[in-house]
Amino acid sequence: MSENQKSVGLRIALPNGSLEEGTLRLFEEANLKIWKDSRKHVALIYSPLILRVTFMRPQHIPALVERGVYDVGICGSDCIEESETHVIQIAELPYGRGASNGVAKVVLVTSKENPVETIEQVERESVVLSEYPSITKRAFAQRMPVDIRFSYGGTEAHIPGDYRYGVCLTDTGASLKANGLKVIHTLLETHTCLITSREILSTTAESPKEHESKKLVVALKHLLLGTLAARERVFLVMNVQTRSKERLLKQLPALKTPTVTPLADGDYFSVGAVVLKDELNALIPALLMNGAEDLVEMPISKVIRSW
Amino acid sequence: MSENQKSVGLRIALPNGSLEEGTLRLFEEANLKIWKDSRKHVALIYSPLILRVTFMRPQHIPALVERGVYDVGICGSDCIEESETHVIQIAELPYGRGASNGVAKVVLVTSKENPVETIEQVERESVVLSEYPSITKRAFAQRMPVDIRFSYGGTEAHIPGDYRYGVCLTDTGASLKANGLKVIHTLLETHTCLITSREILSTTAESPKEHESKKLVVALKHLLLGTLAARERVFLVMNVQTRSKERLLKQLPALKTPTVTPLADGDYFSVGAVVLKDELNALIPALLMNGAEDLVEMPISKVIRSW
Amino acid sequence: MSENQKSVGLRIALPNGSLEEGTLRLFEEANLKIWKDSRKHVALIYSPLILRVTFMRPQHIPALVERGVYDVGICGSDCIEESETHVIQIAELPYGRGASNGVAKVVLVTSKENPVETIEQVERESVVLSEYPSITKRAFAQRMPVDIRFSYGGTEAHIPGDYRYGVCLTDTGASLKANGLKVIHTLLETHTCLITSREILSTTAESPKEHESKKLVVALKHLLLGTLAARERVFLVMNVQTRSKERLLKQLPALKTPTVTPLADGDYFSVGAVVLKDELNALIPALLMNGAEDLVEMPISKVIRSW
Amino acid sequence: MSENQKSVGLRIALPNGSLEEGTLRLFEEANLKIWKDSRKHVALIYSPLILRVTFMRPQHIPALVERGVYDVGICGSDCIEESETHVIQIAELPYGRGASNGVAKVVLVTSKENPVETIEQVERESVVLSEYPSITKRAFAQRMPVDIRFSYGGTEAHIPGDYRYGVCLTDTGASLKANGLKVIHTLLETHTCLITSREILSTTAESPKEHESKKLVVALKHLLLGTLAARERVFLVMNVQTRSKERLLKQLPALKTPTVTPLADGDYFSVGAVVLKDELNALIPALLMNGAEDLVEMPISKVIRSW
Amino acid sequence: MSENQKSVGLRIALPNGSLEEGTLRLFEEANLKIWKDSRKHVALIYSPLILRVTFMRPQHIPALVERGVYDVGICGSDCIEESETHVIQIAELPYGRGASNGVAKVVLVTSKENPVETIEQVERESVVLSEYPSITKRAFAQRMPVDIRFSYGGTEAHIPGDYRYGVCLTDTGASLKANGLKVIHTLLETHTCLITSREILSTTAESPKEHESKKLVVALKHLLLGTLAARERVFLVMNVQTRSKERLLKQLPALKTPTVTPLADGDYFSVGAVVLKDELNALIPALLMNGAEDLVEMPISKVIRSW
Amino acid sequence: MSENQKSVGLRIALPNGSLEEGTLRLFEEANLKIWKDSRKHVALIYSPLILRVTFMRPQHIPALVERGVYDVGICGSDCIEESETHVIQIAELPYGRGASNGVAKVVLVTSKENPVETIEQVERESVVLSEYPSITKRAFAQRMPVDIRFSYGGTEAHIPGDYRYGVCLTDTGASLKANGLKVIHTLLETHTCLITSREILSTTAESPKEHESKKLVVALKHLLLGTLAARERVFLVMNVQTRSKERLLKQLPALKTPTVTPLADGDYFSVGAVVLKDELNALIPALLMNGAEDLVEMPISKVIRSW
Repeated sequence: MSENQKSVGLRIALPNGSLEEGTLRLFEEANLKIWKDSRKHVALIYSPLILRVTFMRPQHIPALVERGVYDVGICGSDCIEESETHVIQIAELPYGRGASNGVAKVVLVTSKENPVETIEQVERESVVLSEYPSITKRAFAQRMPVDIRFSYGGTEAHIPGDYRYGVCLTDTGASLKANGLKVIHTLLETHTCLITSREILSTTAESPKEHESKKLVVALKHLLLGTLAARERVFLVMNVQTRSKERLLKQLPALKTPTVTPLADGDYFSVGAVVLKDELNALIPALLMNGAEDLVEMPISKVIRSW
Repeated sequence: MSENQKSVGLRIALPNGSLEEGTLRLFEEANLKIWKDSRKHVALIYSPLILRVTFMRPQHIPALVERGVYDVGICGSDCIEESETHVIQIAELPYGRGASNGVAKVVLVTSKENPVETIEQVERESVVLSEYPSITKRAFAQRMPVDIRFSYGGTEAHIPGDYRYGVCLTDTGASLKANGLKVIHTLLETHTCLITSREILSTTAESPKEHESKKLVVALKHLLLGTLAARERVFLVMNVQTRSKERLLKQLPALKTPTVTPLADGDYFSVGAVVLKDELNALIPALLMNGAEDLVEMPISKVIRSW
Repeated sequence: MSENQKSVGLRIALPNGSLEEGTLRLFEEANLKIWKDSRKHVALIYSPLILRVTFMRPQHIPALVERGVYDVGICGSDCIEESETHVIQIAELPYGRGASNGVAKVVLVTSKENPVETIEQVERESVVLSEYPSITKRAFAQRMPVDIRFSYGGTEAHIPGDYRYGVCLTDTGASLKANGLKVIHTLLETHTCLITSREILSTTAESPKEHESKKLVVALKHLLLGTLAARERVFLVMNVQTRSKERLLKQLPALKTPTVTPLADGDYFSVGAVVLKDELNALIPALLMNGAEDLVEMPISKVIRSW
Repeated sequence: MSENQKSVGLRIALPNGSLEEGTLRLFEEANLKIWKDSRKHVALIYSPLILRVTFMRPQHIPALVERGVYDVGICGSDCIEESETHVIQIAELPYGRGASNGVAKVVLVTSKENPVETIEQVERESVVLSEYPSITKRAFAQRMPVDIRFSYGGTEAHIPGDYRYGVCLTDTGASLKANGLKVIHTLLETHTCLITSREILSTTAESPKEHESKKLVVALKHLLLGTLAARERVFLVMNVQTRSKERLLKQLPALKTPTVTPLADGDYFSVGAVVLKDELNALIPALLMNGAEDLVEMPISKVIRSW
Repeated sequence: MSENQKSVGLRIALPNGSLEEGTLRLFEEANLKIWKDSRKHVALIYSPLILRVTFMRPQHIPALVERGVYDVGICGSDCIEESETHVIQIAELPYGRGASNGVAKVVLVTSKENPVETIEQVERESVVLSEYPSITKRAFAQRMPVDIRFSYGGTEAHIPGDYRYGVCLTDTGASLKANGLKVIHTLLETHTCLITSREILSTTAESPKEHESKKLVVALKHLLLGTLAARERVFLVMNVQTRSKERLLKQLPALKTPTVTPLADGDYFSVGAVVLKDELNALIPALLMNGAEDLVEMPISKVIRSW
Repeated sequence: MSENQKSVGLRIALPNGSLEEGTLRLFEEANLKIWKDSRKHVALIYSPLILRVTFMRPQHIPALVERGVYDVGICGSDCIEESETHVIQIAELPYGRGASNGVAKVVLVTSKENPVETIEQVERESVVLSEYPSITKRAFAQRMPVDIRFSYGGTEAHIPGDYRYGVCLTDTGASLKANGLKVIHTLLETHTCLITSREILSTTAESPKEHESKKLVVALKHLLLGTLAARERVFLVMNVQTRSKERLLKQLPALKTPTVTPLADGDYFSVGAVVLKDELNALIPALLMNGAEDLVEMPISKVIRSW
């Protein structure tokens, strides 16, 4: 029935801003291409997994996933901490702005000229301009009273000219350095993550419709992680004579589960394995010096070891 | 002999305009790269299949293929209908301008303000500005007399200010909408197609030289369709234990003919199959939940089931 | 020990100028991505194979490799000849500026109006503006005395207006033609090559540290050549019934060593082979007409037959 | 003295975000080119008028100017209202994002499907997602209690799916329309303005150093307004015979103060005037039909009537 | 009254295609900026001169201007000839595609291999593929019977492969040369022109409303020609001592009507003149060597000598 | 006569490489537009001043101007010194790569780690890699014997890894700093200059044809310098009442020669002057506060005070 059909598929909240481009690229590589009109927030997707995709500021996502307005969301873990919500991080997704892996820090900064070197030395009643007032409040709660002012962003522009301390996000630290600031405390390490609610994860087969959502969330997790894993891996396939087979297989780390197939020509085997690009240039000489012949390297677009 | 050599290979007529970019991309992906100087119509290609490539307005192509000036051509089926020729469509090629699949419509349009809603209600002796006078004439022949004026294009600019009715091509309808027009009749649904003549297809092995052309036409059809098919497919390969093999294979639609190979380790099989990207995200969870291990997805550049 | 660790890996001299872009692309495809700051000559690379990468004018490379300041280098063979060094060319690398294969010529040119047609007819005491004074000197040594002037480049601009003869590099000859010049002698055919010193190649297992460098040089050669070979090849895989297997394999040139695997279904084999893109469009019809089924073409990123 | 020198020149707070590009362009046209490193907030400028330039979120600017941290600032008047500060708007600067004139509105929006049409009909205790909580609070204070939630931006993405009402900035309304929203109340009309503090404007010649700042603020206002005025004006110069002079001058509105110079040839005058581009195409025919000869139009880069 | 107001201003038909970009640029320079949405044909303009701007294929323009649907139009004179309309060319506008001056030719072409060299030698009953059937018919009417086929464009692609003769437009001839064709007759020389109807030009002051349109047409002509003239001219202003004045003025061609003003310092005059950029580099040395001092060159945006 | 005509106009040698773009821009601004095909060295120009333009490596230019093959040339003064020719610098042209003013230095550099701080401390028999062997030889001649090796460029890449000292060109020093080098001696300060030969400058009216060349060289100098001067200046024009005139003129530096014209209205004067952009923002307030009214600023394209 049409009524039922509409309720099939996940409702997903995705981040605009610094993660938007990387998210669109990841979904496209995962065969979940999103058609986004730059002026509209509801984007189009044609997939049985997904009912609706909405782009929004990442700060809004945890609360809306917790309330069940969306089934899953993608955002930085800083947004979860700041929002004080109880959502579940079901996967860490190693991507961020540009070629970054999405890892960053929420830090307390001050001018290089300020002799204060740790959070413990911050003067009582100091004014702190913070992009994360809730996280900042918890960090100072057991330490000393401070006056926390909300920052709309661009915090480093105001330290120390306008305010003595600031709390903001940093990945490479280049922007802090360029503005003459130093980090005196790390409040949080943050990464991009896939989140859902406790309600969805606690469904059982007894409520079939809700249980279906849980299955889709797990499928989405595997498809996204499988796509991200494929980015840094290739498929190697090579032939080897029977007498060299064992010697060759020792070169392939157990983890990679090589697939070994006997060739029609009884004296040869074909060996295939997925390997990390980073290990490739050390591995290929080792394989060829241990009996591999006709080695071919092929790009892959997804790899999933098991459910 | 040089004389004979020259007659080997197909003479191909290709469309410039909206299909040009997509045609050049398709041929390059099919390892038939065309070197085109934007000012010349005859383009270069280095291939034993093809003797000569010429780019031209698609409207001209059907007549020239029918007359035997070219062995094959690519154009929209609207051009075939308008030209009233008897060429053979040997394959529908699902591509068009940009990311479109080449499907469009020839429509009769009028202003949204006009109360007329169907072609039957068009007033006798109306003036119709048409980019397809021949198709338009046939459409009105059994209905009512109208005064058909040829349009050089940009028809929607003139309705209703200059003329009351128009006939033009539309794919998304966005341009019609932007100009305040509505469609009151669809004269034709059109798609990109590969055409040849009856003469070439009716050759037999008794006239060897002509028969050779027929073989090349068939080869070209397979190479182009195989390339287009590969765009929307990937290769999946996975391992499965003997006891799960049958369960797993049931998930793979018969059509895909999975290739099953016993591994050296007697208890496992490797399974490979070409699958549609559109089915991938439903299929991968089903496979992994039914025994698939170490699943790898790889891009492909051509797929041809049989001749 | 830190001291020892620093000495592991190759010191490589790479060319800036016309070969720079192609070199960066080749190393990236070979999983040896180089991070180059356009103002610095020492570039970054993260690889166990390579200790240090420096970009410089290719003319400087042979002398520095000969002196052992660098272990390997990439440059045109014209630079080796001009520098009169004794380095070893361990591989010809078929790439150059843009899509070129790196092959070029050092030529003696003069105006088309000049009746002189060969080097033997050059007038005694002629003035020759040369980008390669050393090669030029050797070319004229046994023939006639000439006055060789060093050219900083752009030699063709000065013939015949400012000087009667010139020696310069040319690949397509387009620049010579555009300036109204003709070639009257080819002094040298040149190509891009990977070079190392006699010392490194003559090491034996008795001096383990030096011997390690030799192994790394060989590994680098294979990885670069394997990457270049993959650019013009694809992987073909297809199924074939037992009764057609021999007929099919005859279509695959011996050189390609097809890999034949029996399928679980006893009556079929899977056949895989790496083939040249240039042969593909003739080969695919031949394979399908000789029993191949479910043929799939896949891109590859490296191919190495043996060490 | 170096100490004194440092205190000469204005400290200016400039907006990043949508006004940044237009601000940089305006200052460059005014011969006050700013050298801005995209990662730094403090920018460089070489001018006797200006001591220091800092870019920041415009919301922060009014409070910092009020407090005297900066002498002048540029921001939208919405920021002044939201900040509840008492700064002085010394000039309205007619520029904004791209080619816009900087005029926009703060509006209360809801879904087109919502039958509510005015702010008076909003249901008591409604939840309002607002980018301007302070302005919103004042708007509802005398009307009805509502629950105002702060919005980080992208408000229209959440109406009505997540919240029933929203308050945001709009210029063309295109984004609202694209998201299916309607405006039910305008809370504020906003424009770009140059602001300073009461303290600076109230200085007198008795405190020379502070008074110098006031003079610089006035100079900056004239230079910026003179540059903006020049964008929409040109200089017209033409000759006229004595007998037609009075008739011609009647065509030139009094406001433009034409400059009339007698020519050496006693019977002619030269007439020059600055005129608005918008009036040009009506004015030029009128001038030429009333005796103007040899009319020339020239671009101008600044126009200032008086101090 | 609203009815009357609507009828003020010209209705203009402008060409899309090769003249579109140049037309938009010209109108912008003339302070008649047109805001064109690439999907809409009716464009926006804010000017008392112009009521409505519509872009269309140039072939459609003469007939619509003749019928009075538009008051003025811009198109190539080839379109006028082919349409067999009786519109009036009120100005030749020297612009075309890119930097071209809009001058082109309608030519009869054939293959370079064809021994026919003039139109007189064309064989009776030849087939001519023509983009201008009406012009072609007139050209052959008094000569010989030929079979004229309408060409949709890209005519040179079909000569001689598909048809023996063709008629098409050419400006530089590069495209003809690239396709191996030669011109054997010029049917028409064509240029970009501003057209209107006889009706408009024949109005008198007795029918005031129509007469107003005539005035606007004349104004538009002057504004466009004045803008085009300014592109290739600059304004020179210089001082000269009384004793050198006559010598200096002899250097300035009579045509330029220099403006001479006595300076306050009784012994000097200021001299100003509009001169062609092409004459500038010969003129400036001559002026300075004949008494000019403090010479300044300034750009201009319009120049109109008289109505 | 055609023979004579050909010999009119200058033969100019222009630099390719880092000065090419700036040279093309300067000549275009000076109404001497050069049409350059990137593959040809002889470029086209349509001007009575210039017969032939050839682009070449700047190192080749001084010798060819000295020999009389070209009448004038543009190159850095480093090329003149290195070539040891006796050409005449008739003007310093303040432009270089990008926005640079063309001023640079030939420097002796070494690693920051090297304790040597001046050229006097360089060790005897040191190896110096030099892009200027001739200048380097002269610098060391009276000091100490060194071994100078010719550098093809990119010298900083080799210090100190491959050679201890280097001689190269530097403008901002950024590249040296990025490579960890320091300057220990400046061999030469260099700038872009216009050169010609002693022969041309010493011609008199007695040899009319040669004398014509001298005149053209002087004209070229004035046109280029006048264009460069206009880049950093604008024209100011304002009105002033008789009683304020003297006060106002005191604000205008003597050097600027204001032009003062009495207005028709007997009580006012118009004042015009060319002023430097750098002084503009201090000057405009001063003028307005001393009686200027209706001040207008206009861009200029050339300014030449006298011959």
